[in-house]
Amino acid sequence: MTNTPVCVLGLGLIGGSVMRAAAAAGREVYGYNRSLEGVAAATADGFDATEDLEAALKRAAADDALIVLAVPVPALGQMLSHIRQTAPDCPLTDVTSVKTAVLQAVQAYGLLKRFVGGHPMAGTAHSGWAAGDARLFVDAPWVISVDEHVEPQCWTLVMNLALDCGAFVVPARSDEHDAAAATISHLPHLLAEALAATAGEVPLAFALAAGSFRDGTRVAGTAPDLVRAMCEANAGELLPVLDRTLELLGTARDALAAHQPLTELVDSGHAARIRYENFGRPEIVTIVVGEEQWREELAAAGRAGGVIRSALPTPGSRG
Amino acid sequence: MTNTPVCVLGLGLIGGSVMRAAAAAGREVYGYNRSLEGVAAATADGFDATEDLEAALKRAAADDALIVLAVPVPALGQMLSHIRQTAPDCPLTDVTSVKTAVLQAVQAYGLLKRFVGGHPMAGTAHSGWAAGDARLFVDAPWVISVDEHVEPQCWTLVMNLALDCGAFVVPARSDEHDAAAATISHLPHLLAEALAATAGEVPLAFALAAGSFRDGTRVAGTAPDLVRAMCEANAGELLPVLDRTLELLGTARDALAAHQPLTELVDSGHAARIRYENFGRPEIVTIVVGEEQWREELAAAGRAGGVIRSALPTPGSRG
Repeated sequence: MTNTPVCVLGLGLIGGSVMRAAAAAGREVYGYNRSLEGVAAATADGFDATEDLEAALKRAAADDALIVLAVPVPALGQMLSHIRQTAPDCPLTDVTSVKTAVLQAVQAYGLLKRFVGGHPMAGTAHSGWAAGDARLFVDAPWVISVDEHVEPQCWTLVMNLALDCGAFVVPARSDEHDAAAATISHLPHLLAEALAATAGEVPLAFALAAGSFRDGTRVAGTAPDLVRAMCEANAGELLPVLDRTLELLGTARDALAAHQPLTELVDSGHAARIRYENFGRPEIVTIVVGEEQWREELAAAGRAGGVIRSALPTPGSRG
Repeated sequence: MTNTPVCVLGLGLIGGSVMRAAAAAGREVYGYNRSLEGVAAATADGFDATEDLEAALKRAAADDALIVLAVPVPALGQMLSHIRQTAPDCPLTDVTSVKTAVLQAVQAYGLLKRFVGGHPMAGTAHSGWAAGDARLFVDAPWVISVDEHVEPQCWTLVMNLALDCGAFVVPARSDEHDAAAATISHLPHLLAEALAATAGEVPLAFALAAGSFRDGTRVAGTAPDLVRAMCEANAGELLPVLDRTLELLGTARDALAAHQPLTELVDSGHAARIRYENFGRPEIVTIVVGEEQWREELAAAGRAGGVIRSALPTPGSRG
């Protein structure tokens, strides 16, 4: 727990859920939303929301509040421009999915010093204030960046917000986050689309389809605009893992055509799936935020599956 | 219901389940198994099983029993050789997964005349007599071939066995079955293996993996030998659908690299998935087995999702 107020910019599914969860944890929280409709809905639910961005940011600056960027990526630049003008010294985080692009935008607006990127990995198929839920992040991973520029104090503020929301924290570098997200989220979407499209051209395929097809195409049911937006926004990281998958499948294709065994692909895929099934989530408890090499240690621990479930110590807090 | 006895050759998971299900439906059923162990287990459970293939086939010939080939594909040739010698005039079906290969083997042994291929689409991860279950086929699709050579009388015998086992029947040509199976079963396995193997090489991927990765790689957990056996046995049909998937993904790859939208892949994949979700299973009731064009009509109905849930009429049975 911390008493730093929270200022949420954008009260859609994620921002609205952060507002509810922070309030439920006893935090002072207020927010801005562009549409009057969203503001009215949040206010009607008893939350402190305004459509006046300047007013919200002035209040954040006076409070030294933690500002949470929860607007869609295309609106980011405009929002950062206002923050630079009105609340440039506030600690700043975001809750969007592609971390490198946000990092670059924040840097371009000269706001890197107190910025710590974040990505709560939770969501539903719905959007808008009404879809929000104070328990959306409970037991969900919330990635918090440990890039080189990150300050221990700001990092601790963001960690505490994530923990207050019920999430567990996965520390990660922004570039590694984006590469991993490309692999475990964007790539599966492309494979599902390709599998569904291929089957759509084969007579009798749907008539015989069972579990392996149903599971393998489930995410092809996601709205096309969402799939395109997330894949295209992460193209730089998606491309190399898509190429690797195409290489593995191409080798298998040539083996099939030459009546050779599929051993290489099948053995490595099976071994990887078994490793994934046995992948543990050890709790990170011994790293002190702000001590020498703390960012590198957290990044390494996150890579190994480590998660933070209760606030890590800071040099001043050690007993 | 019919009174034709059933002779099951091979009492593993599928054959053993056919024996149990047929018996539960009140059918006379007996079987052969190569291993003494399987025979002892079936006998101990009260079933009529022998390790004497000649004796089983002589009894089938005397009974004009429906012979069910339930041995692994590599053992098919030897089994067909014995059948040609001892019970060449019995109606014959099989319960293996790749239909064209079985059809060719049956033809090579001169047994095509009374043969109707079948594929009950049910199974578990286990094998052997002990893994069998009288209810394995309940509400499962059981593909029955309507290839050009198929005789109405034999077809009806196989349909009745599938219905007695609680399955619903999907009529299909052997080549169309194999192409569809390649698309909805073998191709998803290869994609799952490639996705798992790719993620296995990306630091942090397992740490962030959630639903789309878990679903997309589920079947990579299948034993590698099984995956290889089914994909390699259906290489001829798997190759063109794998090529089509690689083409779709390659086009998407080039679009990503050129910062072009992914519209083509994502829209067609989504549209296909939605069609699959809305794909109905209308009951086939009006086709009379043995009337002109009955095979073509059943193949077309099966392609459209049609299934048989109670015995179709034959010319003699019409009221």
